[in-house]
Amino acid sequence: MPDLHASRRDALRAVLNESDLQALLVTDLLNIRYLTGFTGSNAALLVHAAGEDRTVFCTDGRYTTQAAAQVPDLERVIERESAAALATRAAADAPAHRRTGFESQHVSVEAHDALARHADGVELVRAPGLVERLRLVKDDSEVEALRRACAAADRALAALLDHGGLRPGRTELDVARDLENRMLDHGSSGPAFDTIVASGPNSAIPHHRPSARVLHAGDFVKMDFGATVDGYHSDMTRTVVLGNPAAWQEEIYELVRRAQRAGLDAALAGRQLADVDSAARRVIDEAGHGPEFSHGLGHGVGLEVHEAPRLAENAAGTLAVGMTVTVEPGVYLAGRGGVRIEDTLVVRHGDPEVLTLSSKELVVV
Amino acid sequence: MPDLHASRRDALRAVLNESDLQALLVTDLLNIRYLTGFTGSNAALLVHAAGEDRTVFCTDGRYTTQAAAQVPDLERVIERESAAALATRAAADAPAHRRTGFESQHVSVEAHDALARHADGVELVRAPGLVERLRLVKDDSEVEALRRACAAADRALAALLDHGGLRPGRTELDVARDLENRMLDHGSSGPAFDTIVASGPNSAIPHHRPSARVLHAGDFVKMDFGATVDGYHSDMTRTVVLGNPAAWQEEIYELVRRAQRAGLDAALAGRQLADVDSAARRVIDEAGHGPEFSHGLGHGVGLEVHEAPRLAENAAGTLAVGMTVTVEPGVYLAGRGGVRIEDTLVVRHGDPEVLTLSSKELVVV
Repeated sequence: MPDLHASRRDALRAVLNESDLQALLVTDLLNIRYLTGFTGSNAALLVHAAGEDRTVFCTDGRYTTQAAAQVPDLERVIERESAAALATRAAADAPAHRRTGFESQHVSVEAHDALARHADGVELVRAPGLVERLRLVKDDSEVEALRRACAAADRALAALLDHGGLRPGRTELDVARDLENRMLDHGSSGPAFDTIVASGPNSAIPHHRPSARVLHAGDFVKMDFGATVDGYHSDMTRTVVLGNPAAWQEEIYELVRRAQRAGLDAALAGRQLADVDSAARRVIDEAGHGPEFSHGLGHGVGLEVHEAPRLAENAAGTLAVGMTVTVEPGVYLAGRGGVRIEDTLVVRHGDPEVLTLSSKELVVV
Repeated sequence: MPDLHASRRDALRAVLNESDLQALLVTDLLNIRYLTGFTGSNAALLVHAAGEDRTVFCTDGRYTTQAAAQVPDLERVIERESAAALATRAAADAPAHRRTGFESQHVSVEAHDALARHADGVELVRAPGLVERLRLVKDDSEVEALRRACAAADRALAALLDHGGLRPGRTELDVARDLENRMLDHGSSGPAFDTIVASGPNSAIPHHRPSARVLHAGDFVKMDFGATVDGYHSDMTRTVVLGNPAAWQEEIYELVRRAQRAGLDAALAGRQLADVDSAARRVIDEAGHGPEFSHGLGHGVGLEVHEAPRLAENAAGTLAVGMTVTVEPGVYLAGRGGVRIEDTLVVRHGDPEVLTLSSKELVVV
């Protein structure tokens, strides 16, 4: 979709003009993917504020064919040291690249030195996060990829339950692998992150890695998993009980569910990020479980599974229409068990659009 | 295995003393894993040249329990901003941290600024690649993890062939997924990298991504895949033919096989890296296919699937006992098909020890 990527580069040019930069040397591969559609493992992109004619893409010989297909609309240079090649290119026309930004939050101290050696006559200006700022608000094609990724996860969970995949005797690793395979069946190109399946007391560990622990009747089983579609990641957590829930399980489940509902209700355009967090946190605090909700409420999700904005007590900024974030409160009772419920949503005018649609009733299997 | 990690920290201290550094602030997560065994996603480590008593590990609250289990033998600090916390710690005892190294090949320009703000009174000295230099030569436990990863890949390929998993009518994606699942069956915790299955004309693309292309009789099928065990990666490529090979297929297969044999024979301790590359490259050059061997001969493999040393025409340095590298020549005939044969090996006194043991006969399935 060259038009889509060209329009993103145009949006970046507006930012460059505001920042008095003549060009930006983009070296982060996800930012390059966002701006060009290129998916290879080595690339650099020199976006010139004056327009497409002066904008140059570089990758190495392994990707000559792929780059021609994915980046047909830009001049392409083939060089192994892609960032250095484009720094040299800027230096060759230094007057037109007097102030050239670089991604100072990604470029290492050593790599910056190497760029500076090649960029003779060019002032390399720190320009952290310019592309990330554009990526905060998703366009329709991005939301569609996220929607498909969330649907793959929803369908995988439904199929797991339908096929009796959650039952005493299986291990956490069995369930994790089953979920990942079922996501592949439904269009995922791979897990969005290391799948978490945490059973019994392990469910009290927020980021437990699936183990050979065997599922038992009475266990909480917490599953935090996601699919990848066109490079976009879904992120969802559901917690179920194997057999009849005990009173304490029903109680903390209901508490987390209310907190999650409060978080979703607060995920409105214009709302302070910290206020969204506190809307959910207050519910848990008032029930006396505040210390057992030991992490932030959520995070942005897109080309990275964790990206800006963060929904947390100390976060600065506000939600805007088109941001995609998770809302994922949890309560973890050490040694006993824990519950987390997480959705991925899009901030809209009015109520958010929740993309993960699996039931949030306490599922008893 | 605290003793193992403690001995690696001791080896690092010898390097610090040589470099006149009182401490090293380690922020790369793989280097931290190498030095401590910690596998979480946020950590920093301040290794003091004076010994373990002054060495401090930091991670955040999600990993309190995990850090106590994995890093029992070091003082542990729990802070979300782990690198900044340890820079502050160094500053609190500045005379003992006068010259403190940082990993300037990993730390971004912005992150370095943040560290410098916290490290009042401490000279932050560029110290790129100190831990990577230790990681070049693998110890027995690392070789054992690589051996198990290579065995998982070997067994997966054998099982794929035994079960008729390579046959006309399946897609490249089917085969890739089958291989990945079979590696999981044999002890892999996940693919070492994006599995390559490239059939027919696609086999001429060195880094083809598996597609919905259906396998046909007469196709080359090139499979480049690896398993992960205890964080260590295997890397192997095998190329087979579906049905009777054509004369041109036998010819380039035999050529690549001879080149690969020459590369293995040259992988000796003390040999120049560039000479190992040229030993294999010469075979292909002499057959007139030099331009169709469009990449380096191989690379180091360990906690990263691509790490130092590189075996390439322009590489500097020599092989040493205990290095683990791939040897992977290929010939790619655009539009027709290509062959790559790759092993992972350990450099030994005398002949190398090849860890990937699958047959290199031209397999006809």
